[in-house]
Amino acid sequence: MEFAKPLPNYLVTRYHGWKATSYQENKGWYRRLATEGQRPRAMVISCCDSRVHVTSIFGADQGEFFIHRNIANLVPPYQPDGDHHGTSATVEYAVTALQVSHLIVLGHSQCGGVQGCIDMCKGHAPQLEEKTSFVGRWMDILKPKYQLVQDIEDEEQQARQLERQSVVASLENLMTFPFVDEKVRDGSLSLHGLWTDIGEGGLECYDPKLELFTKV
Amino acid sequence: MEFAKPLPNYLVTRYHGWKATSYQENKGWYRRLATEGQRPRAMVISCCDSRVHVTSIFGADQGEFFIHRNIANLVPPYQPDGDHHGTSATVEYAVTALQVSHLIVLGHSQCGGVQGCIDMCKGHAPQLEEKTSFVGRWMDILKPKYQLVQDIEDEEQQARQLERQSVVASLENLMTFPFVDEKVRDGSLSLHGLWTDIGEGGLECYDPKLELFTKV
Amino acid sequence: MEFAKPLPNYLVTRYHGWKATSYQENKGWYRRLATEGQRPRAMVISCCDSRVHVTSIFGADQGEFFIHRNIANLVPPYQPDGDHHGTSATVEYAVTALQVSHLIVLGHSQCGGVQGCIDMCKGHAPQLEEKTSFVGRWMDILKPKYQLVQDIEDEEQQARQLERQSVVASLENLMTFPFVDEKVRDGSLSLHGLWTDIGEGGLECYDPKLELFTKV
Amino acid sequence: MEFAKPLPNYLVTRYHGWKATSYQENKGWYRRLATEGQRPRAMVISCCDSRVHVTSIFGADQGEFFIHRNIANLVPPYQPDGDHHGTSATVEYAVTALQVSHLIVLGHSQCGGVQGCIDMCKGHAPQLEEKTSFVGRWMDILKPKYQLVQDIEDEEQQARQLERQSVVASLENLMTFPFVDEKVRDGSLSLHGLWTDIGEGGLECYDPKLELFTKV
Repeated sequence: MEFAKPLPNYLVTRYHGWKATSYQENKGWYRRLATEGQRPRAMVISCCDSRVHVTSIFGADQGEFFIHRNIANLVPPYQPDGDHHGTSATVEYAVTALQVSHLIVLGHSQCGGVQGCIDMCKGHAPQLEEKTSFVGRWMDILKPKYQLVQDIEDEEQQARQLERQSVVASLENLMTFPFVDEKVRDGSLSLHGLWTDIGEGGLECYDPKLELFTKV
Repeated sequence: MEFAKPLPNYLVTRYHGWKATSYQENKGWYRRLATEGQRPRAMVISCCDSRVHVTSIFGADQGEFFIHRNIANLVPPYQPDGDHHGTSATVEYAVTALQVSHLIVLGHSQCGGVQGCIDMCKGHAPQLEEKTSFVGRWMDILKPKYQLVQDIEDEEQQARQLERQSVVASLENLMTFPFVDEKVRDGSLSLHGLWTDIGEGGLECYDPKLELFTKV
Repeated sequence: MEFAKPLPNYLVTRYHGWKATSYQENKGWYRRLATEGQRPRAMVISCCDSRVHVTSIFGADQGEFFIHRNIANLVPPYQPDGDHHGTSATVEYAVTALQVSHLIVLGHSQCGGVQGCIDMCKGHAPQLEEKTSFVGRWMDILKPKYQLVQDIEDEEQQARQLERQSVVASLENLMTFPFVDEKVRDGSLSLHGLWTDIGEGGLECYDPKLELFTKV
Repeated sequence: MEFAKPLPNYLVTRYHGWKATSYQENKGWYRRLATEGQRPRAMVISCCDSRVHVTSIFGADQGEFFIHRNIANLVPPYQPDGDHHGTSATVEYAVTALQVSHLIVLGHSQCGGVQGCIDMCKGHAPQLEEKTSFVGRWMDILKPKYQLVQDIEDEEQQARQLERQSVVASLENLMTFPFVDEKVRDGSLSLHGLWTDIGEGGLECYDPKLELFTKV
């Protein structure tokens, strides 16, 4: 494979800096994590977006969060058809193998995936409607929620609301997985829906009784 | 949805701490990231494992890496069949919408997903062979590489080698995506394969000429 | 001393978060605590176990509890021989200098120290019987209570009962301290024995008339 | 034992509040901690002082810190003579059984134990010099450090400095334990010395090269 390249120099330099400092100072813990295995308390499902740093926001230590990141923090419905389902595999591994106690879905403002979904629903993004568009087909998961926001005239507000609905959709879909449903019912697993405002550093949590997000 | 719960207190407390410090100190940058959008230089595809902190290792700033994390850092082959393909959607978005310059696949030692693949190939994990096992069906992506390591007697060595092969498999599969292949050929995109040793803090890079991983 | 290291980064970050929030919001109280001194109502003697959070369970404010934590929440008998007696020093300080009104001994389920005592009494832990084993010699304090549980066949039940007896042993030993005995008799100090179930969040209180623990 | 009393009502009430809220929301994690056992990353040795809240300062989750608290956060020198040594037992358990990666000694301002040591060294506290004084005999551990501060005229400054020296003394004594020394040398354990200012919320870390404490 001739196309794989050496790592860019700036990353090599930073890696060596980390190795000489943070790694050295935490060597005992890193070795123990390696030999004893991980035991994260929570799984976080967030977006790939480079502006979302879940470990920073929560002051996370190495070993604390099992983190899956995909476009728009979406979980598809339970569909055990034998095909590759990357997201479903992460949920299955977290809940049945690692036995995490919390599933946290973290949405965020200015989400490009959610904006793409809106564009597609308004008929402004024909390329996303093509069968071959992976992003389009992935955002299909969120499409049913568009009706909840379609009457919001302000485009900013509409996008912010659909971002929050992407979190609700994932929570609802998580409950279609039998192994999630069972553990939620017996109290050994709890679900949490969050949405963060990147520019303002805000954080909101979904309240199922009020059916809305309130500031943390 | 009655089952969604408030965020555990320790995370609420830590979030407020982040908001009052890191956020305050970087408010200008966060706001600019919100209004101007992200512009990451690289996409990183790593494992969900709680022990892999790609932002730490590379001293990453907010906005630098578009990060996808799934079980065993696997990319499936190009398969535009109209179904939900979460990982393919992240690659499409990174390469065609964000136009990143680097695709970095980061494997790691003590990977539970890779170990599951070995167990399955050896016939020791019948539950992973069931059609309904999302983890099993996801690890099918790596199965063809098992033949390269099946004769390694030492089990530790065998697992470490298959972890490295999970990176090679992903690099190879990335090249089956037309939009990746095209950009690699015209020089606007480069691929990189890495493997990190969690306990020792080591980092190795795939060298396609030698067809092996060498220390960074 | 070349071996002392900087504080791990994740703790530095969290500390700054606390400083900017909790500290700021309570600055007046913290300063008053500093200038006027502490005036705790109660002393709590609990185990070092990371799963026992006495301040959480009792919603404790800063300044409320004088807290001693050791292996298995044990108090040794009064023995004023001029040697270092760390636990006895904490009791003396709490009762004679701070003049607390309550001495609370808090035991807990799944106590590793108590389990070690059982293993030692059954002859399964020769390393704990060595003169140089600090844990073994410390658990000698509890050994006389083993006879009360030795006939319990179920190992779980046996451990849970000896954990409760570790609380009773400490209460009995506290009464051998003249300054405790005197204040208990004149009514200015009262003793309380508690046992908490970590997994179930249960709390039981020792009833000296019934000679057993009842749910709070 | 007629003297043990029911728990004061205000604590009963608070406990039921915790059980109905925090416990309910985190039940899964608490149960897992109970069945799988603790695996704390660090041990903290702090003072019993009611104004020192180590879990608050570091935003600690249940299960993160193994905490020993005694008068003036002192560790006596290694002395395996077969007597009860409560503090040594906690260190032995943390390092050999739990295999923590960090030993953190946390001193603090306005420490009553340290003030007692100063009074004793100045001949102003005859009652602490008696053989039967547990506090006095415990503070003997710190006495050798008094010579480092005896020439400081300002009494406030003198106390603040001896408080910091109580941390250094404990670090030095920790290194006399063979099982600590061995693990520090092989890099699997690191020691950290901290001192916190209660009124100002400050935190300082001991730097062995400079032989002084610097702000975190």
